[in-house]
Amino acid sequence: MSFFSFELDPALAADPVFERHQRGKMAIVPTVPLASRDDLSLAYTPGVARVCTAIAEAPGLAHDYTWTGNAVAVVTDGSAVLGLGNIGPRAAMPVMEGKAVLFKQFGGVDAVPICLDTQDVEGIIAVVKALGPSFGGINLEDISAPRCFEIERRLDDALDIPVFHDDQHGTAIVVLAALRNAVTLLDRRFADLRVVVSGAGAAGVAITETLIAAGVHGANIIVCDSQGIIAAERPGLSPVKAALAAQTNYSGRTGKIQEALIGADVLIGVSGGTVAESALAGMAPHAVIFALANPTPEVDPAIAHKYADIVATGRSDFPNQINNVLAFPGIFRGALDARATTITGRMKVAAAEAIADIVAGELRPDLIVPSALDPRVAPAVAAAVARTAERDGVARVLHRSPALGGVAVGG
Amino acid sequence: MSFFSFELDPALAADPVFERHQRGKMAIVPTVPLASRDDLSLAYTPGVARVCTAIAEAPGLAHDYTWTGNAVAVVTDGSAVLGLGNIGPRAAMPVMEGKAVLFKQFGGVDAVPICLDTQDVEGIIAVVKALGPSFGGINLEDISAPRCFEIERRLDDALDIPVFHDDQHGTAIVVLAALRNAVTLLDRRFADLRVVVSGAGAAGVAITETLIAAGVHGANIIVCDSQGIIAAERPGLSPVKAALAAQTNYSGRTGKIQEALIGADVLIGVSGGTVAESALAGMAPHAVIFALANPTPEVDPAIAHKYADIVATGRSDFPNQINNVLAFPGIFRGALDARATTITGRMKVAAAEAIADIVAGELRPDLIVPSALDPRVAPAVAAAVARTAERDGVARVLHRSPALGGVAVGG
Repeated sequence: MSFFSFELDPALAADPVFERHQRGKMAIVPTVPLASRDDLSLAYTPGVARVCTAIAEAPGLAHDYTWTGNAVAVVTDGSAVLGLGNIGPRAAMPVMEGKAVLFKQFGGVDAVPICLDTQDVEGIIAVVKALGPSFGGINLEDISAPRCFEIERRLDDALDIPVFHDDQHGTAIVVLAALRNAVTLLDRRFADLRVVVSGAGAAGVAITETLIAAGVHGANIIVCDSQGIIAAERPGLSPVKAALAAQTNYSGRTGKIQEALIGADVLIGVSGGTVAESALAGMAPHAVIFALANPTPEVDPAIAHKYADIVATGRSDFPNQINNVLAFPGIFRGALDARATTITGRMKVAAAEAIADIVAGELRPDLIVPSALDPRVAPAVAAAVARTAERDGVARVLHRSPALGGVAVGG
Repeated sequence: MSFFSFELDPALAADPVFERHQRGKMAIVPTVPLASRDDLSLAYTPGVARVCTAIAEAPGLAHDYTWTGNAVAVVTDGSAVLGLGNIGPRAAMPVMEGKAVLFKQFGGVDAVPICLDTQDVEGIIAVVKALGPSFGGINLEDISAPRCFEIERRLDDALDIPVFHDDQHGTAIVVLAALRNAVTLLDRRFADLRVVVSGAGAAGVAITETLIAAGVHGANIIVCDSQGIIAAERPGLSPVKAALAAQTNYSGRTGKIQEALIGADVLIGVSGGTVAESALAGMAPHAVIFALANPTPEVDPAIAHKYADIVATGRSDFPNQINNVLAFPGIFRGALDARATTITGRMKVAAAEAIADIVAGELRPDLIVPSALDPRVAPAVAAAVARTAERDGVARVLHRSPALGGVAVGG
């Protein structure tokens, strides 16, 4: 790796994407005046010492008197970036910056992109634990499976702030929202759905768990990976896939995805691979296909419509875009507002319901989720998440004085 | 430590310092439009993938196409915060935020406050190494001596971006600037000065080394700590103090600070303690006293003026404030502009000279350094630092295209 004597390829310089990325996509701004000597003595020495002393005596004050109450770290190790794979921390930064500015734009959250120069599980956990006091929440991003599961679980246990791996839960929440509306449109019930999840990575695992929590019977879910159907008897299953097998596919179906899809009502693709048209032919009538791989969906939407009443993708140029930006800004906004210590399963379901509800009054096969730009989404998600945090007992009780612009959150 | 059921003491709520610190002192802002679907596809998926791919192939592009080229981490473990001591990472945050906003205000640098939940030397080094790809520089802050020396040295060796412990070098640079102008006013020469440094912590060690590098004879410097004069024969010296003893006090003077001050031309106090008036009486005529402890100088300025022609403090309410804000914004601005891999000794001296030069034409005993608010300082420091980085061969050669608004920095 060399930083020296590099010139940008002129072909790239003409690409508007590169023009937009010049000098990055974000900046820090002071929110206090710094023009006079008095300003400096209030914001910095000597005045700042009184705030430090107060926080040393009552650490909870850090939420109100530092930016940490509104700050989230967007942390990656660059091991599974978009569909690009393990491109490392430096090359991951444009994605993390993008995520950070979406956090601000839609959730009012101050997010800091942190790209780590380690891909060791213990190393990542140690670093993020050490960063804990600097933030009000941790958004894990683009960390490869199965490492992401242990990293998230151990960090959420260790830290008293929410730790949320967006590739798992953000995707699962928006899928759940979309599927709820699809099922409503089709006059079906979750309990009756036969679902195939194609992909057993971060998103596939979280979607499976979330659907079961939301009422789909594990018996009726089949998860496929690149080798085909995940079944308990398949040799060589990783611990994560063995756990998936134990929760799903009760009939023990085996084979490739075309076997899985026979009679299926729903296909959810989060694989990055493709699903052949011939495999779709076996699906039940009035099917639902979510082909979420980006930029190339597992099934071309035109093909999918031949076999399904409702189709969604991850792309902004087709209807029904399943975009995590519908979830993460509002989820962290709500978690920060509630000073939540974690993000519970019920908070995630509440977020999905809030997303789905936005368009509940105007449902159509090509409108099962709101637009990624819909300004109503994040506030609704935040309110639902904060309410549920209180109900689940993970909101921190701070009887804030009216002078702070806050109210007692109770709980 | 509990976050629960805490209310701010009403007496504190009335303090304007707390009002200024509500919700912290800084925020993130996007610098790209995010209003339309096209905006999102340029700043985020799918467009961002092209920037990631380009950086994966040529990591040097991260400087120009992410914010890291202008981003600095302000890192502390909370072990030596202001004069408050080891108050821990949460209570340190208001100081780090203050530093961060001064970085932006005076240097245009995007600085992120990072307060670490570890005070273990190896732990701190591992965390900051892992953070390396996320930033263009590391400002270490308020880490106690002697741990700060090893942490800085090992991080600067390990990372290809500048690592700078401001409590050491920032202070030393502004002291050097002030002393150069004091010496000019008094028509003296560095080589003839007898200097006493009171305090052998981060600042005292760096000041001693910097003065020697600038031409004061080590033979003529005496460093004191809370036990008195540091001399080679004093039993129980730590490795750092033994190294100080080997470079200074060639005559082997022993005793308390009053012995050190007999015949001294300059007293530089960075101790947090006090120096008795009786001890000052032994100083040479036309003395210089820098009493830099905050908020209570080692010597009251009114007393100091009885024994010295030129007096400086760390306080904004007296003339000649020795304030690190004169140094760190310009130093990092210059280092980032030059894409420096480190900050050399000559870059530090160049910074001091640039600070001193600002007021060289208007020197008075009560005007030996510019005001902390003087907008001329940081650009002058930045230019001197960047030039010297090139001269020292630590500037990264990037032949940037005119389309990027940059120029070849050569070197």
